[in-house]
Amino acid sequence: MKIYNFSAGPACLPDSVLSAASEASQEYQNSGMSILEMSHRSKSVVSLFNETSDNLRSLLLIPSNYHILWLQGGASTQFSMIPLNLLPEGGSADYIETGAWSSKAITECAKVANVNVIGSSKKSTFSFIPKNCEQNIDSSYLHITSNNTIYGTQYKEYPQVDNPDKFLVADMSSDILSKPVNVSEFGLIYAGAQKNMGPAGVTLVIIEDDLIGKNYREIPTMLNYETHVQKDSMFNTPPVFSVFVVNETLKWLKDLGGLEAMAAINERKAGYLYSEIDRNPLFKSPIAEEDRSFMNVPFIFSQDGLDDNNFLQFCDKRGLKTLKGHRSVGGFRASIYNAMPVEGVEALIDAMQDYENI
Amino acid sequence: MKIYNFSAGPACLPDSVLSAASEASQEYQNSGMSILEMSHRSKSVVSLFNETSDNLRSLLLIPSNYHILWLQGGASTQFSMIPLNLLPEGGSADYIETGAWSSKAITECAKVANVNVIGSSKKSTFSFIPKNCEQNIDSSYLHITSNNTIYGTQYKEYPQVDNPDKFLVADMSSDILSKPVNVSEFGLIYAGAQKNMGPAGVTLVIIEDDLIGKNYREIPTMLNYETHVQKDSMFNTPPVFSVFVVNETLKWLKDLGGLEAMAAINERKAGYLYSEIDRNPLFKSPIAEEDRSFMNVPFIFSQDGLDDNNFLQFCDKRGLKTLKGHRSVGGFRASIYNAMPVEGVEALIDAMQDYENI
Repeated sequence: MKIYNFSAGPACLPDSVLSAASEASQEYQNSGMSILEMSHRSKSVVSLFNETSDNLRSLLLIPSNYHILWLQGGASTQFSMIPLNLLPEGGSADYIETGAWSSKAITECAKVANVNVIGSSKKSTFSFIPKNCEQNIDSSYLHITSNNTIYGTQYKEYPQVDNPDKFLVADMSSDILSKPVNVSEFGLIYAGAQKNMGPAGVTLVIIEDDLIGKNYREIPTMLNYETHVQKDSMFNTPPVFSVFVVNETLKWLKDLGGLEAMAAINERKAGYLYSEIDRNPLFKSPIAEEDRSFMNVPFIFSQDGLDDNNFLQFCDKRGLKTLKGHRSVGGFRASIYNAMPVEGVEALIDAMQDYENI
Repeated sequence: MKIYNFSAGPACLPDSVLSAASEASQEYQNSGMSILEMSHRSKSVVSLFNETSDNLRSLLLIPSNYHILWLQGGASTQFSMIPLNLLPEGGSADYIETGAWSSKAITECAKVANVNVIGSSKKSTFSFIPKNCEQNIDSSYLHITSNNTIYGTQYKEYPQVDNPDKFLVADMSSDILSKPVNVSEFGLIYAGAQKNMGPAGVTLVIIEDDLIGKNYREIPTMLNYETHVQKDSMFNTPPVFSVFVVNETLKWLKDLGGLEAMAAINERKAGYLYSEIDRNPLFKSPIAEEDRSFMNVPFIFSQDGLDDNNFLQFCDKRGLKTLKGHRSVGGFRASIYNAMPVEGVEALIDAMQDYENI
């Protein structure tokens, strides 16, 4: 039976990427060695890192005045690195709170500087994206979470900073590479790889050159962006295998036609699924229509008294896995990242219709 | 041709581990999913982490009052986490400097507190381990690097702290699991996986319960040991695949007979190689005999005028790879970690003898 994995992350990867990972785990490029055994100082691995950055740059059209870093520690480490590196002593930053992840980013920033939460949908269980939030004049940057993995909201249009000395920072962990993005609108973009880019264990940072080396305070060397810029992400041993898998995913995206093509597919998949949720009298979406995520699609039973587990087991028997909603929300969540084929979404829609007609 | 990879890290892994990694990259435990796609919240992955910690605990005989953490960021991140978590404001710590890695640990500690470098072999190009170093009465801990990857020295006996309120901290990145260790002599042991334990991308910390939750200062959540203790290394998405490969390596070690058996093999391999270096008039060891590492064996030509590259190419043609000495030392370095088979060391000795007889 074909398995479709709707996990929110780590999440499904393209078959060609898994085959390449399997092969390279045995032997990498006829070297007689596995990619897992290769020194990060070897020509092959240095060249792999360069190729990965080049592929990312061409896919996302990253301007030449931005550095690409491959780090460890996940978005959770970026929550701290961003204010530590980018906010002067006594400085402040604006944050928009759209879910658990932006809340955590706010908590970490508050340890370092002043945080202005200029918009929040917390009281509405994060069911929409706050818009037209008034920015503070003394804030250095505005931080957003582009897609909320847990609650299933997504920015369809990014806010603009209100003066040219400010910059926009975005956690794009759960929708990076799902569509074209105008990188030059941002000072810094970061993303854990384990949703749309590859396996767990590597974190992407795209940072504008101007923001590097501010040295506002003494910080651990490993938390300093300048460290990793100067050493091309090889200050210490980087997560080589994870970067290899990211590169295979980027190659798959290029072969598919790039981000425009990917966005069209994602829009189609999400369109099918939301149409079924809206049509099927058993289910409904808790999310404001204009803010619905194309990546994470939460849905709930439209009436009380139905058993979530019953539907989850019904799906599980058909090979539709990991559809349980996040523990803080309940119900169901279908994560339909880049690597989820249209067939997976169709199989889920079939299951919803068959469940309706039991 | 059989390839032997003498890389200092990432380094060679057992064939059975590579096969398991290759298989799990395609499909993990008949789940229809790759290990690269599986949620860290899934039963399979939670159980994998528990099994990995249990295997480590039984191999190293880790007492029950120690926590095992699987983190990211390498030893370089631990250089900061240790003083940030374990030193009170205005506190101080003793460090013994035995190479580039302990120097970096000292630099990071100095950002946080007072560092006493109570012993250093820097002036002798780190060719020996300083012994009988006098400890400071007000220091909280003594930090050592158990094995120096670059210069090729190794503690054969660990120093003892001079009073019961102090504890010993060791960076064991390059000799962890190479022999039995009495964990209860240490307050904290840490190690990047990529030498003796698995691939790059995961860092082991073994920490005594008493040292957790001191809260001496406000630190980033991700740099707080308590965060990771409370969430069993799953506060955020951990590097699942790297931990999987570590577990396979631990299983290989258990099958081999555990750390006593491993130590006997390592002693034999190192004995053969040092005997040849001492016997062969072409080569010599720059390291004090009693401090010679069983893991990283640097050697140089015993006379000037011979071309390093010539010998490196001679070896390369025979499948003996990555024997170049670290750029700060020159000459040659054979890293003969756990996974390097005796046959690899014998092949290198054959090459040294054949080169002598050209």
